[in-house]
Amino acid sequence: MQMVEIIQKKRDGKELSTEELQYLVQGYAKGKIPDYQVSAWAMAVFFRGMSPQETADLTMEMVRSGEEVDLSSIRGIKVDKHSTGGVGDTTTLVLGPLVAAAGVPVAKLSGRGLGHTGGTIDKLESFAGFSTSLTTGEFVSQVNDLGVAVMGQTGDLTPADKQLYGLRDVTATVDSIPLIASSIMSKKIAAGADAIVLDVKTGKGAFMKEEEKAVELAQAMVAIGSRVGRQTVAVISDMEQPLGLAVGNALEVKEAIDTLKGQGPKDLTELCLTLGTHMVVLGGGADSPEEARRLLEEKISDGTALAKFRSFIEAQGGDGRAVENPDAYLPKAEHIVEVQADRSGTLATLEAGEIGLCAMQLGAGRETKDAPIDHAVGLVLRKKAGDHVKTGDVLAVLHANDPTKAQRVKERFLQAITITETPVEPPRLIRAFVTETGVEKL
Amino acid sequence: MQMVEIIQKKRDGKELSTEELQYLVQGYAKGKIPDYQVSAWAMAVFFRGMSPQETADLTMEMVRSGEEVDLSSIRGIKVDKHSTGGVGDTTTLVLGPLVAAAGVPVAKLSGRGLGHTGGTIDKLESFAGFSTSLTTGEFVSQVNDLGVAVMGQTGDLTPADKQLYGLRDVTATVDSIPLIASSIMSKKIAAGADAIVLDVKTGKGAFMKEEEKAVELAQAMVAIGSRVGRQTVAVISDMEQPLGLAVGNALEVKEAIDTLKGQGPKDLTELCLTLGTHMVVLGGGADSPEEARRLLEEKISDGTALAKFRSFIEAQGGDGRAVENPDAYLPKAEHIVEVQADRSGTLATLEAGEIGLCAMQLGAGRETKDAPIDHAVGLVLRKKAGDHVKTGDVLAVLHANDPTKAQRVKERFLQAITITETPVEPPRLIRAFVTETGVEKL
Repeated sequence: MQMVEIIQKKRDGKELSTEELQYLVQGYAKGKIPDYQVSAWAMAVFFRGMSPQETADLTMEMVRSGEEVDLSSIRGIKVDKHSTGGVGDTTTLVLGPLVAAAGVPVAKLSGRGLGHTGGTIDKLESFAGFSTSLTTGEFVSQVNDLGVAVMGQTGDLTPADKQLYGLRDVTATVDSIPLIASSIMSKKIAAGADAIVLDVKTGKGAFMKEEEKAVELAQAMVAIGSRVGRQTVAVISDMEQPLGLAVGNALEVKEAIDTLKGQGPKDLTELCLTLGTHMVVLGGGADSPEEARRLLEEKISDGTALAKFRSFIEAQGGDGRAVENPDAYLPKAEHIVEVQADRSGTLATLEAGEIGLCAMQLGAGRETKDAPIDHAVGLVLRKKAGDHVKTGDVLAVLHANDPTKAQRVKERFLQAITITETPVEPPRLIRAFVTETGVEKL
Repeated sequence: MQMVEIIQKKRDGKELSTEELQYLVQGYAKGKIPDYQVSAWAMAVFFRGMSPQETADLTMEMVRSGEEVDLSSIRGIKVDKHSTGGVGDTTTLVLGPLVAAAGVPVAKLSGRGLGHTGGTIDKLESFAGFSTSLTTGEFVSQVNDLGVAVMGQTGDLTPADKQLYGLRDVTATVDSIPLIASSIMSKKIAAGADAIVLDVKTGKGAFMKEEEKAVELAQAMVAIGSRVGRQTVAVISDMEQPLGLAVGNALEVKEAIDTLKGQGPKDLTELCLTLGTHMVVLGGGADSPEEARRLLEEKISDGTALAKFRSFIEAQGGDGRAVENPDAYLPKAEHIVEVQADRSGTLATLEAGEIGLCAMQLGAGRETKDAPIDHAVGLVLRKKAGDHVKTGDVLAVLHANDPTKAQRVKERFLQAITITETPVEPPRLIRAFVTETGVEKL
């Protein structure tokens, strides 16, 4: 087999065989195929796409390029959830304890974030003492005992994906749906997922700005899951404006606690119930979506979900008192700065990406891989798109440790929103469901 | 400037600026931009093409990446001829002395060949003692004195082109018209050409199998010439079957001598007169194509062209007696094997590429860069496409130094031709002219 022939085949719009993709991925991972051939292939894929079978083959070859997490000693169907990234996305914090409370095991490998706020691990580290440095043995035991655990990613999962992603990043070949789909799915599969629920974001704050593209990405991922025996469903959800109200690490933890108490923002609660319903159904915890949703609502209203969250935090060394009294035990910023509306009208847009950058500028996120993170800072929205506002109304509250930064961010926040005279419909939260059988637009 | 942004711009179908192409080519030549970014860009060019201005900019940046031959001390307009490669193409051997005899200087840098037969230098080395190791001073003096000289390529001309071509070769990005066009033109311009006559081959034995693609390539090259002040015209000529009758080094030299005497094959003679006419017009040796052609025909019929060939061979140390008596002084093969028709009918096709490989198998060409070449061997056709043949007629004569190889090549030759019952029109030799003002199809 010759790599140049594989590139040419793809360049000419033909389908690569399983053997050819194996040769490509394993050869690349082993350093036998050089970057310059792989980048030419990736650019050909950008233009020609990949068939569902090619995409599945690429995914599984990336899985095979490294270690795989063996979760077989965890009882039950392990359902993982993945979000394609957004601003103020607190769903993972809510869904872990909530789905576990409904009887479906949640064994989550997670990472630190590079972006507007930290990743799930950073957010959880808002709890004093919380640690994700578990051995696989401890991780498995905790899931079996408690139903939920979060472990920091260790081991060499999907090295070929990391290598390929690094190359795509510098060769303008990131924006290819089959390459994005196989990258995401390979990581979930290597992390041991039996079934996968995807939350594909769309809108200005998302990687996929257009809904059509988000659906296409979801379809590609669902098709991979279907071909490799990991049942996958996807929800297409809005990321025009931030999800929920809080953007920041401890602030999102507090919001997750509110949501687990049944007092969370409406959109975050709805998305958690929607994603959770799919997780419970795929995990065999309920026979129908209706039953799953009823079960989840019950676990919130009877306090089981919140109690599960506290047990989970404490099991991993965190100070569980913060679950009962976040104001007393979570990190708090020194300065609270209100951002007020400078005119009356309808809050038409809150550009999610820009608002994320506001939080980042306050110190909530990392600009570089090893930068420190400030768990206390961020912002909490008081108004969302579609809300009527009057001059002087508080639009958001900034939590800052640097008053100069807070003043700058205040200006920036006002640039990130628009207030119109005419009423505006808020963006619809859930746009579509994508399953093996097709796309259901809402 | 960031290379990843340049790749993305091209990927998205936008035009790169002169500065961006300068950054790309000079950065690549200096090792500052890695292969993997350049190959991704080349694949994007494969799909998106390049504008005439981009193609011209790329060409000139490749010229600037290395040394340039300064032919300014040669009097007159230096017209170079380039053929895109074919089988049995003896035009350079004929055109050098012929055009010089018509008063237009021919200062040719040439190389050794990798393919069916040797390159122009290999062919000329069929003359005992002939050398192309001239200094630039000797080269210039000889052109000024005699009108014609051939020098082996020395110096580091267009290193960026060599580097890019090497990369394209292993990344399936050779087949891109603007990249091919800029590669060819950069070499001609760096070699000092003031004006360029292109012979773009089309048909099964050519790189451009389809006439439409050959015209497109010619247009791209003519457009480059026009933008960089090197007037360029192109002839699109047939390479379905070999040009002329001889395929082999000394055999082609003999054919060139016949042609310079006015006794050459009709197609080779016609193509030489056509290309020569353009060379003489561009070189200012005649006011009209009609006058140029008349002049060339006169130089053949009055013996001046042949005498010029002998002077040229002798000026570079070759044994000029071979010009008068090729059979006595050119290398000769030991075995002459006739290939006979195995049925009667019309010789419909002689697949040029396959017939070239027959000559190569006899030892006329190099398979690898440093392989030796046998100047004596090759083949001479006796029939060409459209000719009527009877069973037992000699179709070709093989000149071999290895009788076993000759037997194998005999079989191969018969596989490379087709004889049909119905009459067939021979392929038209000259298909089109491409100039700045447009395409003239014949």
